[in-house]
Amino acid sequence: MTDMTTKTPLLDKVAGPADLKRLSDAELTQLATELRSDVIDAVSRTGGHLGSSLGVVELTVGIHAVFDTPRDKLIWDVGHQCYPHKILTGRRHRMGTLRQKDGLSGFTKRAESDFDPFGAAHSSTSISAALGFTVARDMGMPTGDAVAVIGDGSISAGMAYEALNNAGHEGRRLFVILNDNEMSIAPPTGAMSTYLSNLSRNSPFAPLHAIAEGMEAALPKPMRDGARRAREMVTGVESRGTFFEELGFDYIGPIDGHNMEQVLGVLRAARTRATGPVLIHACTVKGKGYAPAEGSADKYHGVSKFDVETGEQSKGKSNAPSYTSVFGETLTDLASKDPSIVAVTAAMPSGTGVNKMADRFPARVFDVGIAEQHGVTFAAGMAASGLKPFCAIYSTFLQRGYDQVVHDVVLQGLPVRFAIDRAGLVGADGATHAGSFDIGYLASLPGIVVMAAADEGELVHMVTTAAAHDSGPIAFRYPRGNGRGVEMPEEGKVLEIGKGRMIQEGEDVALLSLGTHLDACERAAARLEAEGLSVSIADARFAKPLDMELIRALAAKHDLLVTVEQGAMGGFGAMVLQAMAADGLLDQGLKVRTLHLPDRFIDQASPDEMYADAGLTAEDIVNTVRDAMGRTETNVVDLIAGE
Amino acid sequence: MTDMTTKTPLLDKVAGPADLKRLSDAELTQLATELRSDVIDAVSRTGGHLGSSLGVVELTVGIHAVFDTPRDKLIWDVGHQCYPHKILTGRRHRMGTLRQKDGLSGFTKRAESDFDPFGAAHSSTSISAALGFTVARDMGMPTGDAVAVIGDGSISAGMAYEALNNAGHEGRRLFVILNDNEMSIAPPTGAMSTYLSNLSRNSPFAPLHAIAEGMEAALPKPMRDGARRAREMVTGVESRGTFFEELGFDYIGPIDGHNMEQVLGVLRAARTRATGPVLIHACTVKGKGYAPAEGSADKYHGVSKFDVETGEQSKGKSNAPSYTSVFGETLTDLASKDPSIVAVTAAMPSGTGVNKMADRFPARVFDVGIAEQHGVTFAAGMAASGLKPFCAIYSTFLQRGYDQVVHDVVLQGLPVRFAIDRAGLVGADGATHAGSFDIGYLASLPGIVVMAAADEGELVHMVTTAAAHDSGPIAFRYPRGNGRGVEMPEEGKVLEIGKGRMIQEGEDVALLSLGTHLDACERAAARLEAEGLSVSIADARFAKPLDMELIRALAAKHDLLVTVEQGAMGGFGAMVLQAMAADGLLDQGLKVRTLHLPDRFIDQASPDEMYADAGLTAEDIVNTVRDAMGRTETNVVDLIAGE
Repeated sequence: MTDMTTKTPLLDKVAGPADLKRLSDAELTQLATELRSDVIDAVSRTGGHLGSSLGVVELTVGIHAVFDTPRDKLIWDVGHQCYPHKILTGRRHRMGTLRQKDGLSGFTKRAESDFDPFGAAHSSTSISAALGFTVARDMGMPTGDAVAVIGDGSISAGMAYEALNNAGHEGRRLFVILNDNEMSIAPPTGAMSTYLSNLSRNSPFAPLHAIAEGMEAALPKPMRDGARRAREMVTGVESRGTFFEELGFDYIGPIDGHNMEQVLGVLRAARTRATGPVLIHACTVKGKGYAPAEGSADKYHGVSKFDVETGEQSKGKSNAPSYTSVFGETLTDLASKDPSIVAVTAAMPSGTGVNKMADRFPARVFDVGIAEQHGVTFAAGMAASGLKPFCAIYSTFLQRGYDQVVHDVVLQGLPVRFAIDRAGLVGADGATHAGSFDIGYLASLPGIVVMAAADEGELVHMVTTAAAHDSGPIAFRYPRGNGRGVEMPEEGKVLEIGKGRMIQEGEDVALLSLGTHLDACERAAARLEAEGLSVSIADARFAKPLDMELIRALAAKHDLLVTVEQGAMGGFGAMVLQAMAADGLLDQGLKVRTLHLPDRFIDQASPDEMYADAGLTAEDIVNTVRDAMGRTETNVVDLIAGE
Repeated sequence: MTDMTTKTPLLDKVAGPADLKRLSDAELTQLATELRSDVIDAVSRTGGHLGSSLGVVELTVGIHAVFDTPRDKLIWDVGHQCYPHKILTGRRHRMGTLRQKDGLSGFTKRAESDFDPFGAAHSSTSISAALGFTVARDMGMPTGDAVAVIGDGSISAGMAYEALNNAGHEGRRLFVILNDNEMSIAPPTGAMSTYLSNLSRNSPFAPLHAIAEGMEAALPKPMRDGARRAREMVTGVESRGTFFEELGFDYIGPIDGHNMEQVLGVLRAARTRATGPVLIHACTVKGKGYAPAEGSADKYHGVSKFDVETGEQSKGKSNAPSYTSVFGETLTDLASKDPSIVAVTAAMPSGTGVNKMADRFPARVFDVGIAEQHGVTFAAGMAASGLKPFCAIYSTFLQRGYDQVVHDVVLQGLPVRFAIDRAGLVGADGATHAGSFDIGYLASLPGIVVMAAADEGELVHMVTTAAAHDSGPIAFRYPRGNGRGVEMPEEGKVLEIGKGRMIQEGEDVALLSLGTHLDACERAAARLEAEGLSVSIADARFAKPLDMELIRALAAKHDLLVTVEQGAMGGFGAMVLQAMAADGLLDQGLKVRTLHLPDRFIDQASPDEMYADAGLTAEDIVNTVRDAMGRTETNVVDLIAGE
């Protein structure tokens, strides 16, 4: 009995991929339509990565219908397009919790479902992981085929190329589906992108041009005839091997990734006949089937909650500008005065704010695509030539260019300016996007300057300081989100390298803050003062070089020094301790505590919730001080009562 | 007047590249011959990267003759093939100091010469840097053309692909010379390698097959006719664009990289006519012109001093096995008992010792090529499938896969075993190859286990421990070179995770060592004891998790705790301090010092000399203890005298 009151009668009966095996092709087509509307409904209530998910609805249905998940391993590259996959794999009832505390992750996640065999969130990892599963299958482990679904933006990253190169060499049965929507977050750049467009230029909606020979026979008859005609037409004339064939893959495509018949036909043919690695080139439309998304420049890549009828997104209100926009505006302002300033982004022009500079100085902003390794060394080359490059990469993604930071920039002492957005915990994107490690992995490198902005006004000064710093590499970090609402400086000033600043002077306890937890330090200090303690607060500004004069002064005057940072162990606090030990400052019984992110990953929630989970609230600072000073809360109450 | 007593009459008159402009093509050919014999002579006395340098003699002469270095920027990828370049650019008289303390670097180095515009040592960075110089030229900086010379091994790394992709998109005049000797250190693997072989399969010594259209006219007549015939022959039949053309480059080649006429002709044509990016595909022979090198399996990639007549290399004698071989043998032994053990190397099968396992179990050892990013995630995929992957990558090169370590392995808690060779200072390869940062960049990650072997016997236990550790990621580090000569255990034992060991018990000072500086700690302790101090020594074994029980015991009993490690700040000592601070162990006036690599890069020398330079000898440990304990050497002498 079909429930006539539901918009999704077929979907309502699908408990998992096994149920898809019982549906006809026509029903699968219908299921895709229902699934699409379900994704739109769900994301309208939670926000999230809508456009990517709408682009893969038919692929999702097709793969789960044709392959035997979870025994076959379906690996979504980046994973932000996995909402239809989550809905089909038993997580539909939890879609209302998407990207929220204790809710579903916005990406694939091993801990969440057997249908997520390999988690993702950073791009271009899927083919490598799929090859790992493939080798394991061939060595007798209980796993079936591996299917990687990767976008055209992601496949142009070096890591994906390395994996294609190795998979082509290995020659094992492996499936890569290229989800080609001619978009990463921004329109993709790079020669590979042009190449892919050319491959599909007579498409995307013509019948497929090319299918590997053994697989043609497994196509349904109408497609088989079409494929054969296509092959005959092009033979001899432009029988060039595609890039993928040159790397050892059978190439099938391009197909219309929204035509369920084509999708099912090609997947079935490939699954039946493949003996080696196969690449299926599917053309899709980001935001497919939802007019406001299709019509938008970023195809609703990441959206807030929205009204399904109008597509209008609800916007949070803030009186303070975002750190990203403060960086972008300050950079643009400096660039207008200094023609040697250039900027590099790795496929994140608007995410990093360099789009503001690109609007005014398009020839001086370089979007290298998802290519952090190249981006960093490209910036190093420009710096070696006398230009002043700002390399704007999120903390978590700079991990991709770490060797280049070490070997090409820092070891050569080249003045590349690293603008490190999304430092610390980032909210809904969760643990994979947290900027936790940069303080340690940068400040351990000789000769680099590492700054962290305490607020948006400080960020202005730090961008200005970086622009003026020609003698070597310099980095400044700042968080996702809006500033504190401080009064903005009329003009950025060049900070003295390695000098922090006192915020307030006290006598018992010193809080030494690096970054935007200065705010929490101030709130903690107010509480502690109410309890009768006299508290100094300093903003270190620099994780490297450390302000030893400031540290010595704090050590000399206080009973307890607490460092506070939005980063992992081995970072600012660790290096402060190491410097203090070397200086003999720990020899006299000064108490020191270092507050940092705990030694575990923090799941997604709001940033405030995540910092609470991490034990890094103002309250946690207060408790740390109380514990170290041997004061229980009761003591304090007594103390205050007795005063 | 030519000095008839010299073997190198032309070379003797070349003070720099400017002198090449005055030589005829025939003289340049003669110069190449002289240069080759000079390289052989020089390296026979110092050791070094012979094979690669012999392969590029003609290219070096050709590029300096045709281009206007140092205004034009010549960038050698990896840089280990730069010996002929150094000889031609004013450094011939210093070749006897190659790779030695205060001598010439074995790689290109900005600090060494204006002719080294961008230093190297890690692979695949040259095209990115060259694009940086190219953009700077186009923006009016005082720099000419950029020429990157990159090997076929290096060009298959993802970073090079990212750079080609971006350079093809930018479309700027830029020269990439692909030095294709079908060798990286080991024969290259991967589909790209097969592809390159196919491109040159009717070559390497036929006239070039392809030249970009505008450049043909600039060839000398005989070559022009040959090129035209070649083009006509292939037109219509196999007019497929090469991979490089698909990425937006003009492709010229393959040419015989040892035929000076071809080299000069093509370089001149390209320089005269190029408007966009050009790739010149030159086939060369690693070790060219020196029979013992050409005949050797690794083409004398890196050699010790050798006898020019016989090619026989002088081998240092050691009674102890190298750490690399101990790892390789232990791994092989474990693999023989556990069929789920597999190994991954990134183009370093013999350097990492996994060749030993490959000899016995070839199907279980995967050489992914120069592709650390892919290698790490490929291992993660295998681990997710239940296999037990050992990922054997040098400390310095693991930086290339850092994001994959964080995002694909550690965040998912997958049991990948990282075998980290070349930890600490490595000797002749210098600062670029130092394994300085891994302790910090790994031990700051939640849930990973990080070990360091104190000697070769300990390494056996750590490999065994890693094999048995199924619950999450684990890494163990060990240095380049030979062990201490300890008695080897008959069987590896599984160490208790997070437990160090006491080496000797004392009362005044505790030395807490991580890694092979345990040896130096023992020597330091002997000295200190002679001075009347009672010294405990502990081997931490684990940088993560820390043995807090051990640390508490040491803190309780001693006046001074000194940590010693072969790594940078922000590593073991920093995390010990941070844990001690949290535990309140610093509150009572215990003195702590952390000895680690200094906050600067250490130039090449012998490892012992480098550690002396770094302030990390037994003597330095002694001095640190004396200073911290307030004892001057004189005091001590008095003390001893007075006893």
